[in-house]
This record gives sequence, structure tokens and C-alpha cells, in this order.
Amino acid sequence: MGATGYSGQELTRLLLRHPRLETPVLLQRDNDTRSSGDLARFAPSFSGNSGYPMQPLDWSELKRQQVELLFLATPHEASRTLVPEAIAHGMRVVDLSGAWRLKQAQHRAIYQFEDKDAAIADGLTELAVYGLPELHRESIATAVLVANPGCYATSIILGLAPLLSAGLVDERRGVISDSKSGVSGAGKDATPRTHFVSVADNLSAYAVFNHRHTGEIAEQLDLDSSCLIFTPHLLPIPRGILSTIYVHLKSPMSVQDVGAYFRSFYDGKPWVRVFTSPNLPEIQFSLHTNYCDLGFCLDKDGQRLVLVSCLDNLLKGAAGQAVQNMNLMYGWCEKEGLN
Amino acid sequence: MGATGYSGQELTRLLLRHPRLETPVLLQRDNDTRSSGDLARFAPSFSGNSGYPMQPLDWSELKRQQVELLFLATPHEASRTLVPEAIAHGMRVVDLSGAWRLKQAQHRAIYQFEDKDAAIADGLTELAVYGLPELHRESIATAVLVANPGCYATSIILGLAPLLSAGLVDERRGVISDSKSGVSGAGKDATPRTHFVSVADNLSAYAVFNHRHTGEIAEQLDLDSSCLIFTPHLLPIPRGILSTIYVHLKSPMSVQDVGAYFRSFYDGKPWVRVFTSPNLPEIQFSLHTNYCDLGFCLDKDGQRLVLVSCLDNLLKGAAGQAVQNMNLMYGWCEKEGLN
Amino acid sequence: MGATGYSGQELTRLLLRHPRLETPVLLQRDNDTRSSGDLARFAPSFSGNSGYPMQPLDWSELKRQQVELLFLATPHEASRTLVPEAIAHGMRVVDLSGAWRLKQAQHRAIYQFEDKDAAIADGLTELAVYGLPELHRESIATAVLVANPGCYATSIILGLAPLLSAGLVDERRGVISDSKSGVSGAGKDATPRTHFVSVADNLSAYAVFNHRHTGEIAEQLDLDSSCLIFTPHLLPIPRGILSTIYVHLKSPMSVQDVGAYFRSFYDGKPWVRVFTSPNLPEIQFSLHTNYCDLGFCLDKDGQRLVLVSCLDNLLKGAAGQAVQNMNLMYGWCEKEGLN
Amino acid sequence: MGATGYSGQELTRLLLRHPRLETPVLLQRDNDTRSSGDLARFAPSFSGNSGYPMQPLDWSELKRQQVELLFLATPHEASRTLVPEAIAHGMRVVDLSGAWRLKQAQHRAIYQFEDKDAAIADGLTELAVYGLPELHRESIATAVLVANPGCYATSIILGLAPLLSAGLVDERRGVISDSKSGVSGAGKDATPRTHFVSVADNLSAYAVFNHRHTGEIAEQLDLDSSCLIFTPHLLPIPRGILSTIYVHLKSPMSVQDVGAYFRSFYDGKPWVRVFTSPNLPEIQFSLHTNYCDLGFCLDKDGQRLVLVSCLDNLLKGAAGQAVQNMNLMYGWCEKEGLN
Repeated sequence: MGATGYSGQELTRLLLRHPRLETPVLLQRDNDTRSSGDLARFAPSFSGNSGYPMQPLDWSELKRQQVELLFLATPHEASRTLVPEAIAHGMRVVDLSGAWRLKQAQHRAIYQFEDKDAAIADGLTELAVYGLPELHRESIATAVLVANPGCYATSIILGLAPLLSAGLVDERRGVISDSKSGVSGAGKDATPRTHFVSVADNLSAYAVFNHRHTGEIAEQLDLDSSCLIFTPHLLPIPRGILSTIYVHLKSPMSVQDVGAYFRSFYDGKPWVRVFTSPNLPEIQFSLHTNYCDLGFCLDKDGQRLVLVSCLDNLLKGAAGQAVQNMNLMYGWCEKEGLN
Repeated sequence: MGATGYSGQELTRLLLRHPRLETPVLLQRDNDTRSSGDLARFAPSFSGNSGYPMQPLDWSELKRQQVELLFLATPHEASRTLVPEAIAHGMRVVDLSGAWRLKQAQHRAIYQFEDKDAAIADGLTELAVYGLPELHRESIATAVLVANPGCYATSIILGLAPLLSAGLVDERRGVISDSKSGVSGAGKDATPRTHFVSVADNLSAYAVFNHRHTGEIAEQLDLDSSCLIFTPHLLPIPRGILSTIYVHLKSPMSVQDVGAYFRSFYDGKPWVRVFTSPNLPEIQFSLHTNYCDLGFCLDKDGQRLVLVSCLDNLLKGAAGQAVQNMNLMYGWCEKEGLN
Repeated sequence: MGATGYSGQELTRLLLRHPRLETPVLLQRDNDTRSSGDLARFAPSFSGNSGYPMQPLDWSELKRQQVELLFLATPHEASRTLVPEAIAHGMRVVDLSGAWRLKQAQHRAIYQFEDKDAAIADGLTELAVYGLPELHRESIATAVLVANPGCYATSIILGLAPLLSAGLVDERRGVISDSKSGVSGAGKDATPRTHFVSVADNLSAYAVFNHRHTGEIAEQLDLDSSCLIFTPHLLPIPRGILSTIYVHLKSPMSVQDVGAYFRSFYDGKPWVRVFTSPNLPEIQFSLHTNYCDLGFCLDKDGQRLVLVSCLDNLLKGAAGQAVQNMNLMYGWCEKEGLN
Repeated sequence: MGATGYSGQELTRLLLRHPRLETPVLLQRDNDTRSSGDLARFAPSFSGNSGYPMQPLDWSELKRQQVELLFLATPHEASRTLVPEAIAHGMRVVDLSGAWRLKQAQHRAIYQFEDKDAAIADGLTELAVYGLPELHRESIATAVLVANPGCYATSIILGLAPLLSAGLVDERRGVISDSKSGVSGAGKDATPRTHFVSVADNLSAYAVFNHRHTGEIAEQLDLDSSCLIFTPHLLPIPRGILSTIYVHLKSPMSVQDVGAYFRSFYDGKPWVRVFTSPNLPEIQFSLHTNYCDLGFCLDKDGQRLVLVSCLDNLLKGAAGQAVQNMNLMYGWCEKEGLN
């Protein structure tokens, strides 16, 4: 559900050509006239072939069609409502919104969820697995509800996890992520902020000290929020994220040692590529792929470290990661359908 | 009035630094909460200095402020209403909309004007001078109402006028303008069509056989509509227009002769630059200037001619031309305030 | 050979995931230090995995590796030299350059080929099949040498073929293609013309009456060159082509009839999508796909027709079409490896 | 000299319309065939009018033409050679390169200057005034040699100066500038790095821990290099810089107090605009102006501060600042010729 949005379109594209799947069922959003009819109406790149009709949500119809897994590429409000229903109907869910990513109430506050049944919501919050395969492969495999991570959060968590988990970073000196994202990350709504003339030939910072993904990052990395600064910027490109991350190591290290920590952490994890310092990834390199690309530069003092993390916000930052999670949930190879 | 729009902002910028003018009075649009307060609220590039407050429209206040000339950078519906009032209050008007550009009812139909007083509207239609200085310098000088030309129309008319007026073009073989415009030409409204992700990495044709500027072009060039095809396209750039124009000459000519017609036609007209064939103008060359740049290539048969005409849609295509018209209306040098 | 160029990179990507193929052999270009080592050196998006080494050209080694089909994504000069050798060694070839596309000497003149052995070159010219599957499916299937069409030419020929082949177009009134291409079409060489600052916020026409693809178009459509005007423009986008094509029909037709000709012509041809008038394709719709998208608008006189043809210059305009040709040469489904 | 480069073109434009100046003399660079002839050859936007011929460098001819002030928009190697000559001939110089900006040898090392006469070079180094009017207005007024600041450096120094000079920043906790620049900052040379396809739809970090402007910033702000991290990025836009700057205040402050420090520091300095928190400047706001725009967000702890500084790299970051310096050198209003 949600195939008309940017992430939903990418997801549909991936599911349509996934070798393990039959043709996916596309669901229109309730009471949303924007999503009735054929997908090609909303996304003309889906023109041709036999068409991609979207059907109204009907749980018994879905059961009849033997749908086992529901992908939600819907706003978080919709996901808060739909996930309890879906799970009550015996489905597993991969939710691409922010609705179920956060365990800690302090971080969840920013979303101002209005749940019909708080107890059920709490239960699902407990149940939900944060769908970052590089950190939670095992629990994803058996999860009923996978909360697909935010695009910014994915880029930052994957960049920081190797060194933070090894206890090498002096967190009290601050962890800063200066992140830049293409406009598709801001969604499909036409606003003054997304008008071509407002974005082209421009760059702007926004939501400083105030972005929803901050909680995810802190929670997943077990970081005190007071140590983390995350500044998102809007880039004049359609898609792609680059996070430039600044940390201070507890003790001086060599470039080789830092690189070794990264390589060892991501050994056997096919969707993260570690660049050899001082080579750094660029947004283009991972565009239209499911890779998260990591690189770093270390100051000659051996302590000041600049990390660069890049990914395609619609793939590793959304739809691609959702498919990667599905692969794990079904015991398939993590790369299937993503090449 | 209309300083918050793209053309209005450019016009304000030009008027603020025009050496012959005092500080212009900015008027907010009636009942339009979007245009109350300081201009910087809507266009942050106007931040700083002492501010640019917009005042409500009040004819007697304008009289008190000794305002003689009103620029309207408003939608054509607003201009149809405001122009009769302004002229009744003794002002001269330069209207940047399409409200008063067309003399022939057949071309005007597409606008579906709803005039309160048809007789007054007809009188003003008669009175209005099409504000293309290169064609109508004398009548602009004394005009009460100048209808500032459309951006596409300016680029096409200036490209075609030298050869058409000399009777050199075989009109029955067709006159085609394949025109491409930056997004500011589509206005400031946030729509799916102006969303960054819809425009970036894209090009699209629109309003084929159906664009409002077709009438202006036909009328000014005295062309039968059935001889003219005008196809606009939306370019992934903020501003600028390039028209590629195809005509067939009645008899074979040399490159030198064609060039001579252009040069002679625009002699003494400072805001048109004629490039020496086969050099062609590009959008960048006239960006942020009031120039219309013209160039051409002639096939070796001496009859098939490709013209290229470029201008900045917000300057020579709108605000710059409006200032050029004002200069003529006041007997000043045409270049004043436009360098 | 030629994997480091833009078309070559796309081709490599397609061949790597084609379900019928083993890992392709990448060949470095002779004496070209730019192409030694691993492909990731030149195209960092190929980083990771086990690497993509490029090997020197050695015909006996290729025989040993049981290579049957050679793709050349090289400049036309290189292709003129390499194709005779490859065919002498018993290989079939798909050549993406302009080296073997033209049968008529008048059109070939613009390339100024310097062949070592004119007789062999003439023979291969005779032998070569123009690799546009929608026109030459049968002869491609058995071809030894496929001359993969130019990107502009593909967009224009596919747009015009249905009506021209049915004799519906009044050719003497002229056939005009106003075409616009992304910058990857200009190749990877860093020149003042491809500098970001020269291209961004710009549009320019070039090679008016003088582009190499004109011959292909005329030859394939059996058009007298004097009836055809083809004007290419450089768009500020990385990839994609849109051709706006102007023709005059011999007799008035209805929109339905014109549409029917298109649909019938492309029936069973999976890589052309015909849009229902007045819907028109845009560059985005076919980007990153192998589709050529066609649409049209007909004037109310029933004779003046504006066609719009879009494709991705690196896919349907180059690498995708090359794979489509390979599929035909091996009797596989035309769509294989291209979804 | 150097009118063909990006900064040089902007400078020429400004000087041509500066109300206090006669027509500037354009000098071609020695032995540089690229810079002979008319400026329009290299920058077609200068077409038309009576032309802008560039003359060879001849000191006696310049004396005859009563040239008093020389602007150098040349590479730093050329400036190292030319400045001693110009000053020996009694001229004042504004040098836009990095040749004379640094007093401290440790920072200068990165340039690897090869001076013919070290003593003269040392003398000029001593003599040179860093041309940042907001910091050095008085010494610029009487300077013989003004070293016009780097574009990145201007954005960062102006952002940091108010708080650093007041001793409010805890420097030991690090000062980080994550800066992003348009491509014109990388110069006019066509390289793989500046190819449109390499830059568009991309973002990349470069010269991490290693950019030449680091020395300027440290020197002007009296910062220990070990406290400063400066990471430049290449944006897919032609011009404009945004620096996101991270500092930690020694003691908690209120938003109002921080704002007051900025406003007071820039009181009477017309080319810096301070935005009211939490409003932040964007690149577009200062594009095509000589403004440096500053804004900030303060965390609720009152100590973590994110500054945003924007400017047009070709104006306040180069040519505009050069004109501002000239205005001071001649005792004219700082704003003259820059509106």
C-alpha cells in the first residue's frame, strides 16, 4: 500500500521483478481518491504492459489472494492504524514509515501518535524489530512487524556503528552528522518548499536540533541525545543522501586500524561497501543501488575522524531495505531481487 | 502590485535601483493574505536593509504619494479588474499579464475574460499598446496602458519580425517555434507539475496547439494561425527561454544577406543582440540581462532557416521589458536602470 | 570493449545481470592507459564485490574463453579497425558506434573513415544490419555484424516509421525533428562544452544541418535529406532524449486513426510504448528503462502533427538496444535481462 | 587581469557599471592564447555593444592610461610574479588569488610558492592586508596590496568572528565547518571532476583535512589548527556557498544574547545580514548579491550552536568583495557599484 509515493514506486518496481515473488497486489489507500485506478495514472513510468491496477483494502480479499506480507509505504498516521489490523489478520508487515521504529517514549513524542488502543500499540512497539539488517539480521528473520529505518538514520547508523559498538569513540566530545538529502526524501506533496525554483541552485538546512530521525539514531546507537547533533539539508537533486559525520576517537589510531574495524564489522554484509581511505564515496556511486557506501579520513593526530556515508534514499534508505528485510524474513539470500 | 511573484520580485529589484526613480510603493493584492507584511517574508533575498513593506491598495493614498505609473505583476483576471480603475484614477499602467495584449477576439477567447463593463473593456483593449519596444517604440512612448508581452511571445516575435516584415518567408510552408522555458515561467504556485522531482532530470512538452501566447505571436506578426505551430516545453532550469524557430524562405538567400536583414532591423535597438552565423545564442548568455539574443543557421539550399532566440523570461520576457517600456513612456534612455 | 565510457558502463551493468549469460569478459582498449586495471577505478559505482578486471585484447585468449559475441562501445575509428579483425576471428559483433550504420556513401562521408582495406570495409558495410529491432528483427537474428543505432536516430526513426512507412506524410512539406539530449550523449571527455557550469542553467542548439545521425535517419526512413531537418540541443540533465517531431499529413486524419497506425505498427514490439493522445511522454518516464515512448498531438485541421519521442540515450539509445539485439541474435525473448 | 575566468567575468561586469569608474582596461594573461582578443570570445554573455578587447600587459602603457589599481583574477603562481612588478610600478593591487593571504609560514607551505626574490616576497607578505572589510576596514583603506579572501574562508570567518572574538566559544571542543560550494568555485578548467555528468545528481566531499583555505581561517580567527575541521563539498549548482558551522559555547546563552552579539558585531557593516533565529539563510537568498547571510540555531542546552553562513562565491566570495575593497581603498561608500 502506498505505491503512488516515491518509495512506493521504487518498492513496486523491485517487487515486480523479484524472482521469488508472484505479481504483487497493489492496494489503494482508504478514502484517498489520489490512489484509485491504475498506478500509471500517478506514475507514468509504469505505463504500458498490462497495467497495474490498485485495489481497495479488503482483508478477506487479501486472505483469498494468499497475501502473507504487507508493505506499508504510507504516512506514519496511517501505519499506526493499519498495522494492528494487518497483524490481527495474521499478516507480517514491513512498515516504511516512522510509526514503529522507536522503543523509547521520549523519542516517540515528536510523532504525537494518537492510538485507538494504547495497550495494543505498546505491544506492537515491543514486538517491532528495527529493520536494519546489518544490525538485526536474526531478529528480522522471525519478525512479525519490521519497522523499516529512516533514510537519514540508515546512513548515519551504518556509518557510526562499527566504531561506536567497539567503544572507540569519545562520545562526550560530540557526534555530529551533517547530512544532505535529495528532494524525494521530502515526499511527493507539492509545497513551496518542494517547488523546483525553490530547490534548484539552492541548498538549505532545516529541522536543526529537531528532526524525527534523531531518536532512531540515538536509540540504535545507544547514544545520549545530548551527544548527538544531526543537521539535515535539502540538496538540489532528486535522490540520494550523503552524511558527513564527525567524531573524536578516544585514543589515536592508524588509518589501517580504523579501516580494519569497518571491514570486519561489515564482513559478510553484502549491501555495505567500505572504501579504502582516503577514497570517499559520492552520492552517484550508490544511486539506483541498494548499497550504503562508507569512507573516512583520519586527521594526522589519529583522533579526529570524518566519516562519509552515502546511499540512495529510496533504495537502501527505503524500498531496497524493505526488500532486503523481506529476503531475511523468508530466509532468502539478502541480495535477491536487488541487483 | 504583485511583488511576491517571480516577475514581481525581479521588477522590484530593478525599480529599487533605477537611477530615475524614488523608492517604489509596493502594493499588496486585495484579500490576499499571502501578500501582506514585508516583501522579505515571501522573498527572503529581500531581507535586510530597512525592509520592504507592502501597503494595501488605496487609490487616494497612491494619489497622495504622487504615484503616476502602476506596474501590475498580477494574474490576468486581477488585471482585467484593476486596469480600468487605475486608468480612471489617472494613472498610466504597465500590465505584465495577458489581460490586454490581444486586439482580435478570436485570440482573446482562450482567456475567457469576465468583464464587469464590456464597453470599458473594449475601449481599453483598443487603447492598449503591445509593449514590445523593438516594434512599437513610438506608440509606447505616449501610451496610457502598455500590455507587456508574454515571455515566449517576445522570444518568437523578435526572432521572426525581421524576415516576416520584409516578406521573405514562405508562410504557407509553415512557421514552427519549438520553445523551451525554465520553470519560473510556470509561476510560483506549488503543483505536482512544478515539484522539483517532477522537473529535475526531465523535459516535457505541454499545451501543444493550445498555448495562450499563440494569439500574441500571430497578431503581432500578422500571421495566419494555421501557418504557426508553437510548442512549449518545460526545462529543468529556474529561468531562461530558448526558441528554435523553423521557416522556409521564399527564395534562396546567402547567410550574409539574412544576417544583414537582422542587423538592419535591430540597428539602434540596444536590447537585441544578433549573433554572426553560425554562432548561436545559448540561454546562459542572456540570463540576468535584458537582452534578447538572436542567431541563425541557413541550410546550403539557402531556403531552410533555423533561428535561435534566447532571453531571460523574467527580464526581457517580463520585468526588464516592463522597465524598458517605462523608460520609453518617460522619454528616458531605453537602457536606463537595466545594465 | 569500452566499459569505461557511459554506454559501456550501462552495458556492463546489463550483461552482469542478464540471466542467460556468464560473467562477461571486459576488454581494455589498446594502448589506452585509461582502461587498464579494474573497472571500479573509472566508474566507482562498480566498487565492491570481487572486482571487475579488464583484460588486454587477445583474440586467441578470447577464443579460449569461448567468447562468441563482442560488444564494442568504442569510438567509430576503433570500431572500423576492430570489427574486421573480430569477424575474421569468427565472432559476431554488436557495434555501438557509428562505424557501420550507413549504407550510402553520401551519408558516410561525414565520418571520414580511413580504412586499411577498402574492399573488406565495403563488404562489412554490405553485411552490417542496422540494429533497430522494431524495423529489422529478422535480419538482426542472423546478423554477424549489428550496427547499433544512434541515440537521436532511434528516437526519431521510431517516431516517424509508422506514418512514413504507411505513406501518410507529405514529405515535401518537410519533416523536422527538434531533439534534446542529456549530457552523457556527448561522451565522457572533459571539455569546455561539458563543464558543469557551461551546461547547468543552460540550453543550447548545436550541429544544426550538420549532425552525423542525419544520415541514419534519412537512410532508415528512405527520406530525401532535403526533406529532413534535425536540430540537436544539449539539455542540463545527465541522460535522456526527447525529440519533438513536426510533420504534415497528406490528408486530414482523426486522432483515433493516427493512434491506430502507431499501435498496430508497434503491436508485439515490447520496447515501444504508445501514449494515448493528448497524453505525451516525458523524459523521466523512460529513464533507466529500455522503452522508447511515443505520443502525439494532432491539430484540429487533422494534418499538422506534433510527435514526441522519448528514451534513455544510454539504454534504448545504446546499451539496452545492444542487449535487445543480442537477445534476437540468440533467439531469446527480446525483453530478457532488460526489465 | 584574468577577465576570462568566472571571478574575472563577474569582476568585469561590476567594474563596467561602477558609477565611480571609467571603462576598465582588460589585460590578457602573458603567453596565454586563451586570453587574446575580445572577452566575448571566452564569455559570450559579453557579446554586443562595442566589444571588450583585452590588451597585452605593458606597464608603461598602463601608466599612460593612468591605471592606478590592478585587479588580479589569476592563479596564485601568476600573482606571486605579477604583484611585485605592479607595486614596483606604483600601482595598488587587489589580488583575488591565495598568493598573499597568509602571514604564517606554516599555513603558506601548502602553496609551495617559488619566488624569484624571497626578500621582496617577504616584504609584500608583511605589507599585504587581508581584504575582509568587516574585520580590516581601516587597514584596507590605506593598503597597497589587498589579498582578497577565499570564498570558503569568507563564509566561515564571518560566521565565527562575532563569537570567537568575544571569547564565547570553547575552542578545545572543536570548531567544525561543513561547507558546500557550487562548481564555479572549482574554476573553469574542464576536468573529469567538473564534467556535468560527474557533478549533476551528486554530492562529494573533497580535500578533507587538506584544503588551502584552512590556513586563512585559522590565521584570521586566531584559532589553533588542531581545533578546526573544515570539510568542503562540491554541490551540483553553478555558484553559491553554504557553510554549516558547529561550535560549543563556554557557558549557556540565550538565543537573544547570541543574536545580539551577531547584530552588534555587524552593525554598520552593510554586506552582512543576520537572520533572526530560527530563520536560516539559504544559498538562493544571497545569490547574485554581495551579501554574506548568517543565521543560527541554539540547542535547548544553550551551548551547542549550529551556524549557517551563505554567500555567492563569485561575489562576496571573490569579485564583489574585491569591489568592496576598492571602495574602501578610495574612500567611497562600501556599497557603491554593488547593489
